[in-house]
Amino acid sequence: MAKDILAEVITIGDEILYGQITDTNTQWISAELDKIGVKTVRKSSVGDREDRILDILREAESRADIILMTGGLGPTKDDITKKTLAKYFNSTLEIHPEALRDVAEIFSRRGFELTELNRQQAALPTNATFVSNKVGTAPGMWFEKDGKVFVSMPGVPHEMKWLMENAILEKLRQHFRTPIIYHKMIRTIGIGESFLATKIEQWEDNLPPHIRLAYLPSMGQVKLRLTATGEDLDTLQREVQAQIDELLQIVPEYVYGYGSDELEMTVGRALAEKGLTLAVAESCTGGFLGHSITRIPGASRYFVGGVLAYSNEVKINHLGVNPETLRQHGAVSEQTVREMAENVRQRLNASIGVATTGVAGPDGGTPEKPVGTVWIAFADGTRTVAKKLQLFKDREINIKFSSLSVLNLIRQNLS
Amino acid sequence: MAKDILAEVITIGDEILYGQITDTNTQWISAELDKIGVKTVRKSSVGDREDRILDILREAESRADIILMTGGLGPTKDDITKKTLAKYFNSTLEIHPEALRDVAEIFSRRGFELTELNRQQAALPTNATFVSNKVGTAPGMWFEKDGKVFVSMPGVPHEMKWLMENAILEKLRQHFRTPIIYHKMIRTIGIGESFLATKIEQWEDNLPPHIRLAYLPSMGQVKLRLTATGEDLDTLQREVQAQIDELLQIVPEYVYGYGSDELEMTVGRALAEKGLTLAVAESCTGGFLGHSITRIPGASRYFVGGVLAYSNEVKINHLGVNPETLRQHGAVSEQTVREMAENVRQRLNASIGVATTGVAGPDGGTPEKPVGTVWIAFADGTRTVAKKLQLFKDREINIKFSSLSVLNLIRQNLS
Repeated sequence: MAKDILAEVITIGDEILYGQITDTNTQWISAELDKIGVKTVRKSSVGDREDRILDILREAESRADIILMTGGLGPTKDDITKKTLAKYFNSTLEIHPEALRDVAEIFSRRGFELTELNRQQAALPTNATFVSNKVGTAPGMWFEKDGKVFVSMPGVPHEMKWLMENAILEKLRQHFRTPIIYHKMIRTIGIGESFLATKIEQWEDNLPPHIRLAYLPSMGQVKLRLTATGEDLDTLQREVQAQIDELLQIVPEYVYGYGSDELEMTVGRALAEKGLTLAVAESCTGGFLGHSITRIPGASRYFVGGVLAYSNEVKINHLGVNPETLRQHGAVSEQTVREMAENVRQRLNASIGVATTGVAGPDGGTPEKPVGTVWIAFADGTRTVAKKLQLFKDREINIKFSSLSVLNLIRQNLS
Repeated sequence: MAKDILAEVITIGDEILYGQITDTNTQWISAELDKIGVKTVRKSSVGDREDRILDILREAESRADIILMTGGLGPTKDDITKKTLAKYFNSTLEIHPEALRDVAEIFSRRGFELTELNRQQAALPTNATFVSNKVGTAPGMWFEKDGKVFVSMPGVPHEMKWLMENAILEKLRQHFRTPIIYHKMIRTIGIGESFLATKIEQWEDNLPPHIRLAYLPSMGQVKLRLTATGEDLDTLQREVQAQIDELLQIVPEYVYGYGSDELEMTVGRALAEKGLTLAVAESCTGGFLGHSITRIPGASRYFVGGVLAYSNEVKINHLGVNPETLRQHGAVSEQTVREMAENVRQRLNASIGVATTGVAGPDGGTPEKPVGTVWIAFADGTRTVAKKLQLFKDREINIKFSSLSVLNLIRQNLS
């Protein structure tokens, strides 16, 4: 197998270093590099200081084949990337005629006069290959040194993306003749990372060396990412699919989707395909369940609405929960959540009703029903399924975890 | 002034390096360090590989006084941070009794049995100071070497934040005896950054040199952060308060809170103080407004519930919106939103009713009512106030912005 092509991604700028703005560039860049088989070995942020930039360039050159930089190309004094690159390559800055034409065009289009400060945006180190930026005033720059490639791009995300998509990625593919890499993400819910790892240990140990597994846990979910490296995309896709087929024999009940599928989408698609409609009755989730469902575009095809039954009065008067049920068993009980799910289904004339009631915290817990006690239910007219969750101390997590569990309950009862 | 205390922030994990997940930790960490006067000099991400982690540790040690790491502490095979730290410090891993107690407690609370894999989460390098993590199974670790401090924390954001806020920041303050810095955040809503800046320009220019102002804009809001540096906390607090008193003379109507007050809290407090109750009728926000209100602990004191009236049938049958209104003016109209707010107030027997109806997008727009057209309303029994918003193309932003605008409408009509 060919040697890995390694990249280092560097953001330059005090505003990122001090946490004033969010860096979304490096995530996007490394995901794009990954798709063409280039491995990111390091991501770094440094401030607008010559010594720090020279340091990181030297280090990056020793580690990687490709050094991609964003930021520090603005017209103001604190943007020093270009001067520093000229120094690093023992080069000098000169006005580049094509770059000047680009800048002049943008200014005339905006109806502004070109100042000397703006003219300097067209000055490039003489060893740089000019990469035209049609969506901003700072040009891209491509450098080669001892077989390694350095690229400098503006930090404004849409300008950086435009340069990557219209020039840089293709130039890198050609320059390094990159290997084929294929990823597939398998999304699971309802089993913790360590339990899942134990269940699929043997399968994991039997993966061929060119297919790697990564666990990506998030609240209530574990994503498994398979990464295959080889010569031929069709072969890799077949090999990965064969592994997934084996995995599905071991843990079929936990896999809900692949790639960028979210649970809300999987559930929404299943409802739409079956021509079913959904109504929600929310107590402890207070609207978050409805939001999870309706944040997906097109949710109106299957979601009719719901009742936020926060107070007992609303549970009785607007969901028709029997006051006797509340008196005997309390609001947080199997009996109450069943009535909520069944009644919201009937009253809102939906195929399916779901409900939540619980102690989200931090207050309101009792010895029998401590904070984190949540009941959820699913009703479809022929049967009602209720489930008790024993969650955490954190209110926000309890709310989100409960909503997620309801979505999973719908998924399980639809299939 | 004393020498700067320098920090390096490192994230460990293939999933961030390859761009599979967004790193929000480093921004948060460097912003928190900034508040206690610690300057971040470098941020880096490396993968789950021993050699790369050892490299970055050596480099960071040569550059910074504080090395903060997140990630790579999970129970699975690809998480190798702990083993690597033990190697770096020529130490070995041993089960730490307090760490084991924490892990066992979390598992027993969740009703799970403790597996050997989970037990290993309590194994720490013998030279580590244990930092208890009450919200997850991976403990924090504090190391000291030649006056420098290394801290390892889990990569799950809420666990990392919990550790920082409950232990690490205070330990760093004490260890490095950082200068006195006092921050106060003033929260505004309803005015854009540049308009606000123009209104308060003279006040800003007159700030004394040891009090700095920063604008922190976020969706629909602008936060103003005053940072004062000096010798005595009481003096700094008095000086900052005097500046805020002046500011309130200039822009009283936009300031809704201070510090970590959120608009939901300010509104909730005002309702509770006046003994008022609230009900919501949500169409385009689909539950997000209810969630915004109920994610605040104690919301049951003033929030009774609501109706998610997503379909027209629910608007008619459960909110009593006149079918004639919907036919004549459409669901997204002033007439409909007024009826929704008034009726939800009456039907749920609340002091105040609020409502949303709009085109969240990406589909459903028309020439007269393009995507981003939203009506909101407030009704308190004596009057009803409706407002039209012309928002954006992005569904999630439209949902959140609409909810925020309703909260602000409540605030304005309560005061």
